[in-house]
Amino acid sequence: MPFISLLTDFGLQDPYVGIMKGVIHTLSPQAQLIDLSHGIPPQDVAAARFALMTAYPYLPSGTIHLAVVDPGVGSSRRAVAIQTETGFLVGPDNGLFSGVLAQTPALAAVELNRPRYWRTPSPSRTFHGRDIFAPVAAHLANGIPLAELGDPLDVAELTRWEWPPPQMETNGCRGLVQAIDHFGNGITNLPGHWVEGRSWSAWIKGIPVRSVATFAEGEVGEVLALVGSSGWVEIVQNRGNASRALGFKVGDEVRVQWSG
Amino acid sequence: MPFISLLTDFGLQDPYVGIMKGVIHTLSPQAQLIDLSHGIPPQDVAAARFALMTAYPYLPSGTIHLAVVDPGVGSSRRAVAIQTETGFLVGPDNGLFSGVLAQTPALAAVELNRPRYWRTPSPSRTFHGRDIFAPVAAHLANGIPLAELGDPLDVAELTRWEWPPPQMETNGCRGLVQAIDHFGNGITNLPGHWVEGRSWSAWIKGIPVRSVATFAEGEVGEVLALVGSSGWVEIVQNRGNASRALGFKVGDEVRVQWSG
Amino acid sequence: MPFISLLTDFGLQDPYVGIMKGVIHTLSPQAQLIDLSHGIPPQDVAAARFALMTAYPYLPSGTIHLAVVDPGVGSSRRAVAIQTETGFLVGPDNGLFSGVLAQTPALAAVELNRPRYWRTPSPSRTFHGRDIFAPVAAHLANGIPLAELGDPLDVAELTRWEWPPPQMETNGCRGLVQAIDHFGNGITNLPGHWVEGRSWSAWIKGIPVRSVATFAEGEVGEVLALVGSSGWVEIVQNRGNASRALGFKVGDEVRVQWSG
Repeated sequence: MPFISLLTDFGLQDPYVGIMKGVIHTLSPQAQLIDLSHGIPPQDVAAARFALMTAYPYLPSGTIHLAVVDPGVGSSRRAVAIQTETGFLVGPDNGLFSGVLAQTPALAAVELNRPRYWRTPSPSRTFHGRDIFAPVAAHLANGIPLAELGDPLDVAELTRWEWPPPQMETNGCRGLVQAIDHFGNGITNLPGHWVEGRSWSAWIKGIPVRSVATFAEGEVGEVLALVGSSGWVEIVQNRGNASRALGFKVGDEVRVQWSG
Repeated sequence: MPFISLLTDFGLQDPYVGIMKGVIHTLSPQAQLIDLSHGIPPQDVAAARFALMTAYPYLPSGTIHLAVVDPGVGSSRRAVAIQTETGFLVGPDNGLFSGVLAQTPALAAVELNRPRYWRTPSPSRTFHGRDIFAPVAAHLANGIPLAELGDPLDVAELTRWEWPPPQMETNGCRGLVQAIDHFGNGITNLPGHWVEGRSWSAWIKGIPVRSVATFAEGEVGEVLALVGSSGWVEIVQNRGNASRALGFKVGDEVRVQWSG
Repeated sequence: MPFISLLTDFGLQDPYVGIMKGVIHTLSPQAQLIDLSHGIPPQDVAAARFALMTAYPYLPSGTIHLAVVDPGVGSSRRAVAIQTETGFLVGPDNGLFSGVLAQTPALAAVELNRPRYWRTPSPSRTFHGRDIFAPVAAHLANGIPLAELGDPLDVAELTRWEWPPPQMETNGCRGLVQAIDHFGNGITNLPGHWVEGRSWSAWIKGIPVRSVATFAEGEVGEVLALVGSSGWVEIVQNRGNASRALGFKVGDEVRVQWSG
């Protein structure tokens, strides 16, 4: 029985996530669920895209990724299911899956327009997670083929959302903070392999930051740059919160300068 | 093997929820658990009642609902287990189950007064979730009949807690905000079917709010009234937090006026 | 199939916990997971030690406890797996396991220095939870013997971290607040059996606090001392937050005085 991962902006205070799990288990009692996060900032598609892209490579092959961060619910945005080489993606077609699809191309996609695979033919206009996406994920877990769930879509038409790409320059490279994690680490969109094997330092908010291989090389409280666990250049603070210390936020520019 | 749902005000910072799960799995290794919420505001029985009532219809039939929001723990409040047509309820008899029981009548109830079904005959005076309710839920999951778990109670004597009922009036109807969710949506106690098929607008805190069918019909930032996913009139803000925008809180009055 | 418990300071906003679960289930699809807490304050080894020690006795026998609060990741701190009579402990050797090991002696321990049991022979320098600890926990769940996972360690050399021990005195006893839970209860390191059967009161921050058997014996809002559910003297407030009411924090002194 495959795994279903869940990613939402529903928070854990309300019972909405539990309701989606109840709907899944009503249809597929044996499905095994893995929560990726329910703490995406409300309606922040870019944050959801980053979280899913970061987690995707570590989930078991065949996992069905159910992701619901859906500011356009009730509008004409499409509901989709997508097949990749290593799993399925189910959710709104608003760019949320762009990060995964940049790593792993879509093999096939359908528009979720067949009410017989929904919880009800009259879904709520505000909670497609419960009435459309959760039931569709459960049907995929039960072995219903993707092509059954809706009319085929050209994968080239799926909505993409990307940050401006990082730039390689003569004396370094230039990108931005694409996410800030719970520890206050700023995760840039500069690939680690651009800096590995070189001597370099970073600049953010006009402040220079030296590069190290690991947190423990810095003094306690020192702000540092390193290649983080997901393969991006990160701005971190040894035993502290770099975002709070330097006041940076998502979207802020980060420059790297070769020093050797 | 049936599902056990969990609803508490324990938060997720302390290991108390994990401890209850450990106790359940020690007695019933195969039980499958579904978290509804552990973020109920501390000791807020009304919020717990609303969350459980909202989630209940979406859980698999036969689910055992373990709910522990228990300001009276250690006092003379009763510990109960209740059977309905579609599942079981286990927790303190403080009104927490009233919302579910208004939808689905109690078929039978027992007072949990048989220590052989507890974790220990000397339960903690402050953590019945661990020592009484979790073990009882596990025994139900293992197939022990309700009637075994304690002496029978007259279901008419179970503690009820209800908001003042909403009022239908000549020019509209009148109710109150019964819950505010993580998005800042104000969920009233006005049933959606009272307004469906009519033209209407809402008033809250002296402010008029127009009704729409879905978020996306409003301007970005506009406060709107609509029938939400759980079937109640809701006061929402398109891509925003209505509670923060208008300053309303649980218990505040909401009026609906027919406009057509 | 044994259970794996998870305790981290990763929070639930980022997908890091979901990533560890994905790594576990990739290697051990049948493992059953129990979250103890992911809300340990960042890098707070003392808080993690207390949470694990508190939860440990309630988890099923044989559980593999995966605990990652790891301020020294990337430094020379050891990665370890430890066997006790009732389960396994997997994580950094930084004192996190001291509380459990004070209850349940270590029978054997290994240093996790065999990359064939890791996710990759080149683990991230900042996320051993994903690359070393989660895979090792999964291998233990799959039945790989502890001794296979690394070179043996003398259990006497495992890092210990303890608060100064509480003192029994002529007129009472003296300890400190070792943790503050989500309800604001201050959990001291004074064992409940030191006060049980006696008349006593407590002093904290210069304020006297009377002892009761249970919350419900106090007035609403009254600050009280009682023996809590984990067997320690606690400073609590009836329907309130004692820590906020009295302004105490972890490490503050608590004195108990015999009154009878």
